[in-house]
Amino acid sequence: MRNIGIIGAGQAGLQLGFGLLEKGYTVTVYSDRTPEQLFNARLAATTYLFGRAYQYEQELGLDFWKGPGEYARGGDLDVCAAPGQRALRVQGRILHPGKALDLRAKYSRWLAEFERRGGTVVVRDVDVDALEALVPGHDLVVVTTGRNSFTRLFERDAERSVHTQPQRHLTAMIVSGMKPLHETPYPALKFILAAGHGEYFSMPYFDRIRGPLNCILLEAIPGQGLDRFGGVNTAREALERMQQVLRDFSPWVAERLEGAAIVDESSWLTGAFTPTVRKPVGRLPSGRAVMGMGDVVMLNDPIAGQGLNSASKQAHAMTRAILEHGDQPFTPDWMEQTFEHFWRTEGQFITAFTNMLLQPPPPHVLRYLGAASAVSTLADTFFDNFGEPQRFWPWIASPTETEARIQQASAA
Amino acid sequence: MRNIGIIGAGQAGLQLGFGLLEKGYTVTVYSDRTPEQLFNARLAATTYLFGRAYQYEQELGLDFWKGPGEYARGGDLDVCAAPGQRALRVQGRILHPGKALDLRAKYSRWLAEFERRGGTVVVRDVDVDALEALVPGHDLVVVTTGRNSFTRLFERDAERSVHTQPQRHLTAMIVSGMKPLHETPYPALKFILAAGHGEYFSMPYFDRIRGPLNCILLEAIPGQGLDRFGGVNTAREALERMQQVLRDFSPWVAERLEGAAIVDESSWLTGAFTPTVRKPVGRLPSGRAVMGMGDVVMLNDPIAGQGLNSASKQAHAMTRAILEHGDQPFTPDWMEQTFEHFWRTEGQFITAFTNMLLQPPPPHVLRYLGAASAVSTLADTFFDNFGEPQRFWPWIASPTETEARIQQASAA
Repeated sequence: MRNIGIIGAGQAGLQLGFGLLEKGYTVTVYSDRTPEQLFNARLAATTYLFGRAYQYEQELGLDFWKGPGEYARGGDLDVCAAPGQRALRVQGRILHPGKALDLRAKYSRWLAEFERRGGTVVVRDVDVDALEALVPGHDLVVVTTGRNSFTRLFERDAERSVHTQPQRHLTAMIVSGMKPLHETPYPALKFILAAGHGEYFSMPYFDRIRGPLNCILLEAIPGQGLDRFGGVNTAREALERMQQVLRDFSPWVAERLEGAAIVDESSWLTGAFTPTVRKPVGRLPSGRAVMGMGDVVMLNDPIAGQGLNSASKQAHAMTRAILEHGDQPFTPDWMEQTFEHFWRTEGQFITAFTNMLLQPPPPHVLRYLGAASAVSTLADTFFDNFGEPQRFWPWIASPTETEARIQQASAA
Repeated sequence: MRNIGIIGAGQAGLQLGFGLLEKGYTVTVYSDRTPEQLFNARLAATTYLFGRAYQYEQELGLDFWKGPGEYARGGDLDVCAAPGQRALRVQGRILHPGKALDLRAKYSRWLAEFERRGGTVVVRDVDVDALEALVPGHDLVVVTTGRNSFTRLFERDAERSVHTQPQRHLTAMIVSGMKPLHETPYPALKFILAAGHGEYFSMPYFDRIRGPLNCILLEAIPGQGLDRFGGVNTAREALERMQQVLRDFSPWVAERLEGAAIVDESSWLTGAFTPTVRKPVGRLPSGRAVMGMGDVVMLNDPIAGQGLNSASKQAHAMTRAILEHGDQPFTPDWMEQTFEHFWRTEGQFITAFTNMLLQPPPPHVLRYLGAASAVSTLADTFFDNFGEPQRFWPWIASPTETEARIQQASAA
């Protein structure tokens, strides 16, 4: 059987590993951390896993976490034209269940499970030299982490990379004692769009230790009113600023955070990065080729919650592509075609959707949201398509087609 | 509704708390640690929760951990007359499923869940002075922890306490990469009785981070051949000594540990304590009374795996007793009667069974085990009764009655 090496023990790498193991492949995952180190790491992201990606995990028998608390059944969006003023309100159902699970719990458990199912785990910090040395021992090496300058192996795709600097300053936190969202009859993702300032997201979350809680992601446009977390050093300070942000921008949500607390010092983050698309074939100094997957080739801002979902979809597509390739050599051409297929069918829409949300909504999108505040099928489509952003296309790009959808749904 | 205070966030305290919350009681749990601190604590015990106690948890909706790995379906006992020589082998089924879950994962998650269900959690290190101050605010205060000299509040019961010093030196560890027990057709608890030296137990275990693994408990008679863990300071050293012990005493089991590792430095322990039964009414310096429950009143050696099961059964009995007591005052008399009822129906057998295993087996018990190696109903009874030790009585105390059981089962 073919022998695949995977660098990185995250969503993309481990999901691919499990998919190949299941088909009898020999798979080695190189992780720079033990399960305990992965578990005890600082919070790195809080993404919600939407229906299809969540389904992929379940099919692989990888959903080990019980408890209804982490599921959302819908979304609740406030569009605010000015701080403290809600111009628009959209509530809709999310039809396919997903979940927001603490990734530290997931990856640590998965790494142990990977070994249990017969995979090989090498705990070692692989750098470019080490990568050179291990490539000849595998039929294919897939790089899923941007650590140790691995991103430099993959050329930036100038045509597909829209941005040259971070579009948001990010703050995320895991919060206990947050009051339920009373505005929806079901557990929901809460979105607030503060025009000109950025976005707030909160959602039911499954904490690695405490189980069902909530997490918050704040996306601040640099230099604007939400961008207040510079110099924050403690969880308490971060929470206080978040409370103040909400009092200023969404007083109707602020009271949910009264009496709440960030669960511990490792469960909040601030950061920023430049969304970048890269070429999928990585070239080592020797000329050997490795394939990129996940964030290393498609790094999107978390505003649309696509990162984890994209990694899962890439892993799913890659598993199929590897299996279908049988015993043929994994050439750079194959790598390119495999990624191009994913880009054409999914990647471009994931990226375009994310970039659309990073910009002020154009009039026809605002018009859609306005209509969605009254017509539930439009609202359901808006929220449910976060898990399938390709479904927004081609119509969302065209004011006429969007208007036709609105008319059709309103008449129904 | 009545207002109950519980000191200690372990099996006894939290299970009682959930049972009372469910009936609408106002319950406060005082924990000296946050969920994160409970989770990250050093390993303190590795007990298997047998059928009935496990059932109590499930009834309260408290089994949040998925995965078949932690269940045992039977037991496999070697009786060794001399090191390396197996005199007897008993294999039997455990009819009621139970599990060995990492208690750090359990208590941390439960404490968060307790708050979620409407209980009050006070994270505070309560000492005797603090206890004095909080007793008047509750209708009843139950003390479930022996920390901060709380054991001194509860008079040692000289009649029921058989021992005045530790009977075993204990070593426990959580191990990854341990090979499956090939000797049974189902996941099993493995027991080795090394006559004159002590006992070895290994079992499927659910690790707080990695999920299904194995744990080992070694019970060394002080000064004898298994008592080799004095001065051990690291996980690696502890594992090496365990491997050597097995090579010397049970070479047929030793190979299971080749290539294994203790999961991390916080997941092994050595220790010793004196089994003690105490009076259930604790007297504060002011004369106020508190009620003891769990290890603080019945501290047994872990040889029979009773500690956690006993705590669960006590919590179950206490919940019922409190509910049945309605609005009447919780007097010292009531406390005494409540504990006496438990002692009469369960506690005395839990303690007697544990103490029986701490002694060399008398001839009629060895005879029973010898017969059980051939007659499966006798073997099943032996293993299944670990969860219900009262079922060993009165017959196990009488050579004649034990012989009658053997004859009856052998004839069937």
